[in-house]
Amino acid sequence: MLPKNGLLNRRTFLAGSAGFLSTAVWASSQKDEPWRFTSGRRMSPYGAPSKYVGLERLQIGGHPLAPEAGASSTPLERLNGIITPNSLHFERHHSGVPDIDPSQHRLRIFGNVQRPVSFGYEDLQRYPLVSKVLFIECSGNSYANTLPTALDKSAGELNGLLSCAEWTGIPLRQLLEEAGYDPKSDWVVAEGADAAGMNRSVPLSLALEDAMIALYQNGEPLRAEQGFPMRLLVPGCEGNLSIKWLRSLEVRKNPAHTREETSKYTDLLKDGSANQFSLRMGVKSIITAPSGKMQLPDHGVYEITGLAWSGHGAVKTVEVSADGGRSWRAAEIQSEPGLYRPTRFRLPWRWEGQPAVLQSRAVDSSGNRQPTRSGALANAAPGFTYHYNGIQSWGVDQQGRVSNVYR
Amino acid sequence: MLPKNGLLNRRTFLAGSAGFLSTAVWASSQKDEPWRFTSGRRMSPYGAPSKYVGLERLQIGGHPLAPEAGASSTPLERLNGIITPNSLHFERHHSGVPDIDPSQHRLRIFGNVQRPVSFGYEDLQRYPLVSKVLFIECSGNSYANTLPTALDKSAGELNGLLSCAEWTGIPLRQLLEEAGYDPKSDWVVAEGADAAGMNRSVPLSLALEDAMIALYQNGEPLRAEQGFPMRLLVPGCEGNLSIKWLRSLEVRKNPAHTREETSKYTDLLKDGSANQFSLRMGVKSIITAPSGKMQLPDHGVYEITGLAWSGHGAVKTVEVSADGGRSWRAAEIQSEPGLYRPTRFRLPWRWEGQPAVLQSRAVDSSGNRQPTRSGALANAAPGFTYHYNGIQSWGVDQQGRVSNVYR
Repeated sequence: MLPKNGLLNRRTFLAGSAGFLSTAVWASSQKDEPWRFTSGRRMSPYGAPSKYVGLERLQIGGHPLAPEAGASSTPLERLNGIITPNSLHFERHHSGVPDIDPSQHRLRIFGNVQRPVSFGYEDLQRYPLVSKVLFIECSGNSYANTLPTALDKSAGELNGLLSCAEWTGIPLRQLLEEAGYDPKSDWVVAEGADAAGMNRSVPLSLALEDAMIALYQNGEPLRAEQGFPMRLLVPGCEGNLSIKWLRSLEVRKNPAHTREETSKYTDLLKDGSANQFSLRMGVKSIITAPSGKMQLPDHGVYEITGLAWSGHGAVKTVEVSADGGRSWRAAEIQSEPGLYRPTRFRLPWRWEGQPAVLQSRAVDSSGNRQPTRSGALANAAPGFTYHYNGIQSWGVDQQGRVSNVYR
Repeated sequence: MLPKNGLLNRRTFLAGSAGFLSTAVWASSQKDEPWRFTSGRRMSPYGAPSKYVGLERLQIGGHPLAPEAGASSTPLERLNGIITPNSLHFERHHSGVPDIDPSQHRLRIFGNVQRPVSFGYEDLQRYPLVSKVLFIECSGNSYANTLPTALDKSAGELNGLLSCAEWTGIPLRQLLEEAGYDPKSDWVVAEGADAAGMNRSVPLSLALEDAMIALYQNGEPLRAEQGFPMRLLVPGCEGNLSIKWLRSLEVRKNPAHTREETSKYTDLLKDGSANQFSLRMGVKSIITAPSGKMQLPDHGVYEITGLAWSGHGAVKTVEVSADGGRSWRAAEIQSEPGLYRPTRFRLPWRWEGQPAVLQSRAVDSSGNRQPTRSGALANAAPGFTYHYNGIQSWGVDQQGRVSNVYR
């Protein structure tokens, strides 16, 4: 018997149900498709998507006087699995994308160290590397959902400053030990070689724990938008901390209090105080389908699917609601749990025209629970901008139109 | 004390060694790199590699009269991690790459079924999906190493018909159940919509076990070279079985004995018999660096790294030798073991000018051991072409030049 909320048990459903038959009809008369009768095109050195797949990053902001600064977001609603292809990884630039000649680039480590050292790109290629599948999320991701009115936007437009890749690089600890860092220091200030000279203060404990100097992204050398020839990568933390085009690391006693950790990327609270260095991204999940601006073509069964991640560990559980949070059902978590690795969750859902509000909520291995929208905003000052991780709600009306709603 | 073969313990090495210091010098006078003083380029809808990264698939074969047929291989020696970016996934085409309009493409299931069914691309998007990180290897991969003389080629030129992606698709079992397959049948014959009409017979047991109709590759819709809009994917088996541009599946009592399973993709043995339907790829590993055609820049420590995989399960161990197989040391396996998922292995090695022969050998979770070259060829008839998984040997001469050698 169909539960009122339409949420189905995935295992039961997959074991022998003929629930999708309505969409599967035998087309007995088949016209002869033209591609069966002429040779196709030749091989290519470096491939590109089919012309029938129009996938693009959405460009956000960018001041008219400085169009090279801004952000572009991953079209989450068009993707599946957990990997973001490199060409669709979100971007955030303060002075555009520099085109760095790796033979002229060096990484310097100085400050409170016994031996100031510097490394060329070729030097670093010889180092022992590590590979990890990790998300990067911009601290300002999902900001639009903190506004008073829900904007009619897609999953990627709202939440697409979140991407995931297999990153390969050198453990930063290795290089800091080689320089002989002063263990009584507490910070490492990282600076990029772009014209913005982006810089951030990283706690030494994080730098020694699992930060890396990333050289490869999904197998190939970093893309320029992601910091080629090398970037800092601090797993689980706001993307801004993972300085691209990394040119120097200064070991220091105190943080630098740069623009990016004072006027920006801090959390102003209602009581007038502000959280500074709130670096780890909270536990979060987003339903990517069905999602905003989609149209359900007809009644029947759909797979509710999305991504979940946490900067405090691995995702432990994801639950889905189809009635705006009155009832919940555990979704299947598809990918192996891993620290700071997103998981893909899935749950079948039968829609027979009933109005619905689709939501997901995640719990991580540290016991953190994704808050409701109002919970996430409870202590925030008006104009709160960063680290928003409230539950995303998608309304489905009787005509099957899906849109962003607040619950 | 340095062992004679130069192989180092990774954990010990990483814990506090200053072994790389020879490459790390402080460059005190730094010229001002131009990219620090001008804005970079704007964001892009769909990114591309840096102009300083010239990564290409190597094109192999292709008859002059039919240049659209042939293969292109992944440049394994330039990549790291286990994911192959979609633009560099190896290709193998018999009639080129068809440019299929998904709205005009259907997948039909017929033969020994209760209800012949067909599915459009949009229909399949609604099905419950699964995501898995899987290798695909062409049955003819590494063929050059079966020739009498070792060719001076790179790791990718020799072994690059091997790639890995996160594949997302519909479990084939789901669709076969929906059609009501006859459980007394034993085969499913799959056919592609390309002009070659590529077809293969898949054992029904494999089709029901873990085969999928893949729709996504590393997050985005399949590339045309990989079968857009949909391909069959039979994990662990020779790539040829995973029919691209899939248009039909016929459930049958007997195999079709197509060209691709009679004159091709069978293993002719010395005794005149041939193995047919030897579908699973053997356990195998390849050192990707240092590897063929590379030049070690100077004495010092290098990371020996490569990929290992098996069509019979998960990779369990990888050992590395630097003296042509006289002594071996366990490499670190970096990625989580998984069925048909490649692993990246790593081991530091100190080279002080000694001639060396670098080798790797893998063992899988079914207990299979990668054979030596002569072991792999022991029963094969001359001209043996498929399923070669012998150990790859890279010679390093006193000048640091690395080349393909037989041991």
